[in-house]
Amino acid sequence: MNIGILGTGTVGRAIAGRLGESGQAVMVGTRNVAETMARTASDAMGNPPFSTWQKRHPKVKLGTFAKAAGHGELLFNCTAGAVSLEVLKLAGEANLNGKVLVDISNPLDFSTGMPPTLSVCNTDSLGEQIQRAFPAVKVVKTLNTLNARLMVNPAMLADGAHTIFVSGNEAAAKAKVVELLKSFGWEDIIDLGDISTARGVEMVLPLWLRLFGAMPNPIFNFKIVR
Amino acid sequence: MNIGILGTGTVGRAIAGRLGESGQAVMVGTRNVAETMARTASDAMGNPPFSTWQKRHPKVKLGTFAKAAGHGELLFNCTAGAVSLEVLKLAGEANLNGKVLVDISNPLDFSTGMPPTLSVCNTDSLGEQIQRAFPAVKVVKTLNTLNARLMVNPAMLADGAHTIFVSGNEAAAKAKVVELLKSFGWEDIIDLGDISTARGVEMVLPLWLRLFGAMPNPIFNFKIVR
Repeated sequence: MNIGILGTGTVGRAIAGRLGESGQAVMVGTRNVAETMARTASDAMGNPPFSTWQKRHPKVKLGTFAKAAGHGELLFNCTAGAVSLEVLKLAGEANLNGKVLVDISNPLDFSTGMPPTLSVCNTDSLGEQIQRAFPAVKVVKTLNTLNARLMVNPAMLADGAHTIFVSGNEAAAKAKVVELLKSFGWEDIIDLGDISTARGVEMVLPLWLRLFGAMPNPIFNFKIVR
Repeated sequence: MNIGILGTGTVGRAIAGRLGESGQAVMVGTRNVAETMARTASDAMGNPPFSTWQKRHPKVKLGTFAKAAGHGELLFNCTAGAVSLEVLKLAGEANLNGKVLVDISNPLDFSTGMPPTLSVCNTDSLGEQIQRAFPAVKVVKTLNTLNARLMVNPAMLADGAHTIFVSGNEAAAKAKVVELLKSFGWEDIIDLGDISTARGVEMVLPLWLRLFGAMPNPIFNFKIVR
């Protein structure tokens, strides 16, 4: 399947690498291809420049946001929450409409220091904002509640015995995403309901961030014991 | 030990019942003792009137908020978040100061329908508001992330293999509360840090509420798999 991934950061690379390895035709989208390829320094998170990463994943293509969105039958929003709406505008409605968009973003606001707060929460969510801004896109919120390595390889922790959530308005779109999550190894997948339930999974980030402070490493996740 | 419990609802009863059964001298606090004892109807949650409950727990005393707070060496805030600050004022600083207050409340706002939103979150929390309003009280936030029956009997679910969190400014106060949690059967207790980490556990309620909608019953909890 043709996959379009918006964002070249940790999350975009994790999803692109995993889907590329499983034989999908993946294009990652960025603001400016030449600029992204010209970077030689590691980013603030210590990730090597994209060109270095791409050498290890030669089948994964890089294009503009619009090219990647146009390429994909299935799309992923792996951009920072602060720029997600702007990036989706750059990708272009015509390239997005009618498609399933897996939204992994979090509305983190770093402007007042660490840990970040949320730029939207409680009575709204970024997932809902995206769905409202692009009503013909099938937004499915998932995978935003854990470390990128775990997203695509849940079995690396406790043989995968932990939980992932999905939120979205359309059952068929969620079913497609659940299928994909299963291909990553996810077994415990909870459908929370419509896209307004994205408030729940986005508002879990403040707890995740404090756990990140209390844990020896970021390889942890929520399991809903019931 | 003398225990004071503010609130006669589901949570107050669960804590009072458990501690009363374990031989502690428990007094539950309410706004108006005569009114509380005169009630003959079940409450909105279907709980029987307090007088009926008390017949099964004859050693648990009922007093005003001030009496219960004065009685307790260790205190519990089991009131609805919307009235917690007011109730603590009624309890009186002189009866609270210097004591550990286990804060189980959640700042739920039901004014815009179901599921409730939070009346404070993101850049503040009810736990912090209480700590600021009563600086000489040792506020420890815990147990607000799950059903009342599970609070005092974690072993009823998966032999207790799930997680509880504590937040508070003073290590000695948290150690005392951890001791108490262990006496309830809690084994996986994560210290998140100071009282500002109450934001994390209070903001998990929107997810809890959606899970409550998706699950067959409220006997579920978060486990931090790591």
